Amino acid sequence: MARASKREEIAQAALEQFRTRGFNATGISDITSAAGAPKGSFYNHFASKEDSALEALERYAAGLRFDMLDAAGQPPLERLRAHFAFLGADTVDSGFARGCLVGNFGAEVADHSEEIRSAVRRGFQQWAAHIARVLTEAQEAGEVGAGLDVRATALFVLSAWEGALIAARADKSSAPIDAFFQLVFDVLLR
Amino acid sequence: MARASKREEIAQAALEQFRTRGFNATGISDITSAAGAPKGSFYNHFASKEDSALEALERYAAGLRFDMLDAAGQPPLERLRAHFAFLGADTVDSGFARGCLVGNFGAEVADHSEEIRSAVRRGFQQWAAHIARVLTEAQEAGEVGAGLDVRATALFVLSAWEGALIAARADKSSAPIDAFFQLVFDVLLR
Repeated sequence: MARASKREEIAQAALEQFRTRGFNATGISDITSAAGAPKGSFYNHFASKEDSALEALERYAAGLRFDMLDAAGQPPLERLRAHFAFLGADTVDSGFARGCLVGNFGAEVADHSEEIRSAVRRGFQQWAAHIARVLTEAQEAGEVGAGLDVRATALFVLSAWEGALIAARADKSSAPIDAFFQLVFDVLLR
Repeated sequence: MARASKREEIAQAALEQFRTRGFNATGISDITSAAGAPKGSFYNHFASKEDSALEALERYAAGLRFDMLDAAGQPPLERLRAHFAFLGADTVDSGFARGCLVGNFGAEVADHSEEIRSAVRRGFQQWAAHIARVLTEAQEAGEVGAGLDVRATALFVLSAWEGALIAARADKSSAPIDAFFQLVFDVLLR
């Protein structure tokens, strides 16, 4: 029987390594040893580290659970809160080791790789569009004021989230994440 | 006459290189060639790349112009706005190449170097304390409501700023920075 391809393990290990080490500090051998695969096998599946970083971003985005934002039957702002609570728990539960891959790649790689920059940009745009849609529903439901600039608010909330994760990881405390929930849900979107 | 020490040039070049390339992508030779110094001379002044990164963080923090936040005779919220306008212009004027070194090191290095993580943490704490002081003054002047949780708001505004710079650099547009000003000054602190 032919040995099963290690592609899935390598792709998943790349996501984990990039999330905890960042792009430049992750070596191909970090990825392959985490995947239990020989180093050379990486290039059977990916043209370059950059190539696997682009797939890692896609996989990370798929794990952002945008479906939680769209779940019918729950008030819009509750869905938005549940979305960030789900993501925040991942960072807290990892002992503040894991941040957001979109934001981390944005901070680290955006200036060096046009392809990664474009993917980060697209990631932010899609995410902000999802948030904006929930805010529009919240507006229609009368949960937030009709005057709220939904598009700018979505961008702002996403920026605040990215910054809160970075500050929480540096602080190894959830204080910045707690401040995010307090200010976004008790003040900004009240 | 003895040749003047290149220490200042090397330290300044390190700050520039770290800001545009990040920590891991910056090599010692990138720093010394930017400083016009021989590679070996780096180690006459710094024990390691990490050592120069710590000094770069101090230099960056010194350039954050906290004095603008304390300037007497200007309304507190105007000072806060001027502070971020000053910093935002630096990123926009660099064609979105330069971000915030505190946030970038936080995203990239906080998990790998305990010393850099501590320095980033201290940087965030000092910065948030300055913002909190201005917000307290704004509260005393009646510019913002007495109910505002000054400490959490300062943390949140700083997180939002860091995230906005990352998103702006990925987007190569000032839209996330514009959203920051709109939401912080026209909505949150109105």
